[in-house]
Amino acid sequence: MAVLVVGSIALDTLTTPSGKAEETLGGSATYFALGARIFDAVRVVGVVGPDFPVTEKRFLEEKGIDLAGLTTGQGPTFRWEGVYGPDLGDARTIRTELGVFAGFSPRLPDSFRSTPCVFLANIDPELQLEVLEQVVEPRWVAVDTMNLWIDRRREKVLEVLGRVDIVFVNASEARQLSGEDNLFKAGSFIRSHGPRFVVIKRGASGVMVLGGPQPFLLPAVPLEEVVDPTGAGDSFAAGMLGYLSSTGRPLDFEMVKKGLACGSVTASFAVSGFGVSMLRDLTSESVESRMRFYLSTNQLGAERA
Amino acid sequence: MAVLVVGSIALDTLTTPSGKAEETLGGSATYFALGARIFDAVRVVGVVGPDFPVTEKRFLEEKGIDLAGLTTGQGPTFRWEGVYGPDLGDARTIRTELGVFAGFSPRLPDSFRSTPCVFLANIDPELQLEVLEQVVEPRWVAVDTMNLWIDRRREKVLEVLGRVDIVFVNASEARQLSGEDNLFKAGSFIRSHGPRFVVIKRGASGVMVLGGPQPFLLPAVPLEEVVDPTGAGDSFAAGMLGYLSSTGRPLDFEMVKKGLACGSVTASFAVSGFGVSMLRDLTSESVESRMRFYLSTNQLGAERA
Repeated sequence: MAVLVVGSIALDTLTTPSGKAEETLGGSATYFALGARIFDAVRVVGVVGPDFPVTEKRFLEEKGIDLAGLTTGQGPTFRWEGVYGPDLGDARTIRTELGVFAGFSPRLPDSFRSTPCVFLANIDPELQLEVLEQVVEPRWVAVDTMNLWIDRRREKVLEVLGRVDIVFVNASEARQLSGEDNLFKAGSFIRSHGPRFVVIKRGASGVMVLGGPQPFLLPAVPLEEVVDPTGAGDSFAAGMLGYLSSTGRPLDFEMVKKGLACGSVTASFAVSGFGVSMLRDLTSESVESRMRFYLSTNQLGAERA
Repeated sequence: MAVLVVGSIALDTLTTPSGKAEETLGGSATYFALGARIFDAVRVVGVVGPDFPVTEKRFLEEKGIDLAGLTTGQGPTFRWEGVYGPDLGDARTIRTELGVFAGFSPRLPDSFRSTPCVFLANIDPELQLEVLEQVVEPRWVAVDTMNLWIDRRREKVLEVLGRVDIVFVNASEARQLSGEDNLFKAGSFIRSHGPRFVVIKRGASGVMVLGGPQPFLLPAVPLEEVVDPTGAGDSFAAGMLGYLSSTGRPLDFEMVKKGLACGSVTASFAVSGFGVSMLRDLTSESVESRMRFYLSTNQLGAERA
């Protein structure tokens, strides 16, 4: 199968307690594509400016990522600058320059319209709805959202929820959207608006999914050092959805549970380096090896490889 | 086998967002004994005043808890009053009246001195060392500590660590003791002082243990409502150590991992009611049933009962 992602492609300037990276490859669609390609074919819809480095575009293509949906607009590539504090919690945004992303209106090439699996990364819910108008009978659709859209476009966010199968939120977004402090209640509220599965990301505390006969939770991969949390959510979605797409089967809870593990492992690579650096040369052998380690850290009876 | 606990027996006044309980049975040894009795025989060393309700003493005995080490001192029973905020995080202490606990010097009855498994609940590390002088070749010793003693008696806390097999800390205590922000590094620091296994409790984010070939982590039991977090740590230790004691075997990592699950389940009962209310009539059938549910919420391939 194949998975389609619609999201941002950016040049990020990142400062964390361990250092700084300037104008480095970033954006939700980029993190997603570089993570999901380990599991299945990936198709990208997005926009860059003429200033986007040709070497980076070539690099993505060489990794087998289908960029037929990547257009080059009039203006600079989307740029974001963020600074993380010592706890590596939410970044403080220093600068957002939308550039060509300000006028982004996603257009799917004909060859992309029947992609069976679709991920709507964190973009304006209006644009997410535009994508849903263009896809033809997808097997499933997953969506990411963020506090900005919950604040400004709550009704549109809820409309999107009514049309997707899987939603990703972090704990604070789940609470913000539902008004419930307890995450299980918050997740139930979100599910009541349509999506079959709600994935709640809790950072270093791991992840949970609601939508089966009981909640399912996994701790994060134990890491002695987190270098840069940028892209953790998108690389989590990448591993999970790449795996789900690769099965070629309709969604079921057992698959989703295993997908949670694939997402945790993929995110653990992303946060171990600056920007996308650890995803650039990631191989399925590395992912499999870390998966064996990971399961030995949270599954009773699992042996370390 | 049997497990010995040395700790406080108290009358607690608790206020949480869901209500208030006055002069209710509490104390670390009480929570521990009521949780661990589900798994194995429990022996208590502690002190109360003549004002301690006879009905509560009789209740503990009827539950099969051996109170041969419970003395009645001159003065009031230890009383503690705490208030929890809406997030049910650390309680704010309103009042601590040590009473007979101020002069507590643990004396083990001869019949208790060869108890194979020993839990030193959260008391002054000087007293913990006094207990270690009285036990005869225990199979293992576990210890709980708290920020108060890490602040005031750091050297004594480290001395205790050098003489025990398992230590329980919460995340903030692990960071305070080690000066390391990363919990895996904090745990390694603590292990370097002696204990074979370090259990780090993270509240609603679950628990981890260091001391095997890799870390092992479990999420908390999913609960739609936490009524009162008092005693969560002691009831966690109760489930884990009660199980380890019941095996009759020397410690190994596989047992410790399963012990983590037993601790999580026992703690989940404790926090579901005010004070010890949910532990009073707890049965092994309830624990086994919740264990099957719990494993289905975090073990891939586990089926719900």
